[in-house]
Amino acid sequence: MKKVFIIGCGLLGSSLVRRISKKKIFRNIFVYEKSKSNIIKIKKLKLPVKIIKTLKDGIVNSDLIIFCTPMSEYKDLILKMNKFLSPKMLITDIGSSKIESSKVIKRYLKKDIHWTRSHPIAGSEVSGPEHGKENMFEGKWCVLIKGKKTNLKHLKFLVSFWRKIGSKTVIMNPEQHDKIFSITSHLPHLIAYNLVKSAQDFEKNFRFDLIKYSAGGLRDFSRIAASNEIMWRDIFFDNKVNIIKAIDLFIKNLNSFKKDINLKNNKSILKKLIQTKKVRSKIIKLKQDINKPDFGRD
Amino acid sequence: MKKVFIIGCGLLGSSLVRRISKKKIFRNIFVYEKSKSNIIKIKKLKLPVKIIKTLKDGIVNSDLIIFCTPMSEYKDLILKMNKFLSPKMLITDIGSSKIESSKVIKRYLKKDIHWTRSHPIAGSEVSGPEHGKENMFEGKWCVLIKGKKTNLKHLKFLVSFWRKIGSKTVIMNPEQHDKIFSITSHLPHLIAYNLVKSAQDFEKNFRFDLIKYSAGGLRDFSRIAASNEIMWRDIFFDNKVNIIKAIDLFIKNLNSFKKDINLKNNKSILKKLIQTKKVRSKIIKLKQDINKPDFGRD
Repeated sequence: MKKVFIIGCGLLGSSLVRRISKKKIFRNIFVYEKSKSNIIKIKKLKLPVKIIKTLKDGIVNSDLIIFCTPMSEYKDLILKMNKFLSPKMLITDIGSSKIESSKVIKRYLKKDIHWTRSHPIAGSEVSGPEHGKENMFEGKWCVLIKGKKTNLKHLKFLVSFWRKIGSKTVIMNPEQHDKIFSITSHLPHLIAYNLVKSAQDFEKNFRFDLIKYSAGGLRDFSRIAASNEIMWRDIFFDNKVNIIKAIDLFIKNLNSFKKDINLKNNKSILKKLIQTKKVRSKIIKLKQDINKPDFGRD
Repeated sequence: MKKVFIIGCGLLGSSLVRRISKKKIFRNIFVYEKSKSNIIKIKKLKLPVKIIKTLKDGIVNSDLIIFCTPMSEYKDLILKMNKFLSPKMLITDIGSSKIESSKVIKRYLKKDIHWTRSHPIAGSEVSGPEHGKENMFEGKWCVLIKGKKTNLKHLKFLVSFWRKIGSKTVIMNPEQHDKIFSITSHLPHLIAYNLVKSAQDFEKNFRFDLIKYSAGGLRDFSRIAASNEIMWRDIFFDNKVNIIKAIDLFIKNLNSFKKDINLKNNKSILKKLIQTKKVRSKIIKLKQDINKPDFGRD
């Protein structure tokens, strides 16, 4: 393949660049990046890309276009890109939620243009091209979305593309996808943000410096709560319906824990605490984490 | 010093053994352990201890006695130990909450015996002597409790003891301690358990295998939620009043997040998401974690 066009070259965009270049998946990598500081970093890092100034230059003759921007930027980009797009072009993205953003795409994207959606389960709490790495997607899941109007040829191409990137692929419909990740990813991030927020409120009210004693648990949540705020706002808004359901389930369960604690209900709380351990064994069995105790990172 | 007596030789008890032996802080280390499987492990590991069968053998001529059992075992142990204890003996523990368990100690411990309380901020999600390590407490905080009736000579001794163990020490009153750790440690653990519980409930209702997609956040919580259930039940019950207040604050904040999401209140949610990032910088500045991005453990 000749040309890939990556829009947004932050943590994940730059990781794709590194992998595509290393594995020679495309001969030319074109990048559009609106952040000046990211452009300076990309040049300094000597990433093997051609940074272009107009979307048109990126689109023309592209075999694949990958949106790696926050989802809230799709609309503006689509409106600027429409007149240069042709039906044979393959378009995808790496957005973390799919139902609402698909509506935006459907509404604004020119007729007869296909956009087939991807979601690689990879990332970190840090942002920017300086943190990207070639093996970011290695052994990680990439979900490909198959809706009613998905172009099956494009879908097949993307399965093959993500495998070259190093991912394991799985196909879901958008509803399945957004439900699953509301629980396994979106709620955990919201909870981490909320826990840190609560610690801050507590510190303010209590006027006592407690962050320095965060090694006993809070520390790990603070890492997750340091993730990019624009990306996460977009996800929370985009997957609103499922996330609100997840919050309600979470609060219901938390109130049940509270009741157990208040009544010192030994049997009920032990049942819960033992039951949750099983998930850990399952996660390790499924190779989603390693079976090595964590004593804090040194 | 001649003799230390460690009651309960699991993760932290065995870590103390290793450190005391390595640094020659006591000449003899006596251990009382009620779990047969732990005794087999201690022997197999060849830990440099004398395992004794009766509490009396451990207590006689001890310079320091350290309770390393779950807090729910204190009462029974105290009742069995009382007649062998003498006022010059130094007693401490490593329990994670202090107000309620101090009431138990006060109620059952023989008059004129001093028990000075410690809380080293160290541990992991794993249990058992096979996971202990000599540098478990190195550079970690150890909180020493100073109440109205604390024996100051004993307190001074323990400050020196924990520094030899490798800890940084800080003195708090029990109320301060239990408030701070309800937020920095107890609530985060409860939240992790609750998040995993919610994922399990969701999986059941939705009849879809979602744990295999846990790399996007849930995975990290599942590790914390694999911690010892007896220890955590004891902490949740013991620090009930503060933990319930912490739950209420957490739910109040979560409802505010839910409102922002429901109304797509951009300004309000971004303020929250940006604000929480500051805690992360503070935690790194205070050396409670390292400044290295996490991409999942390989």
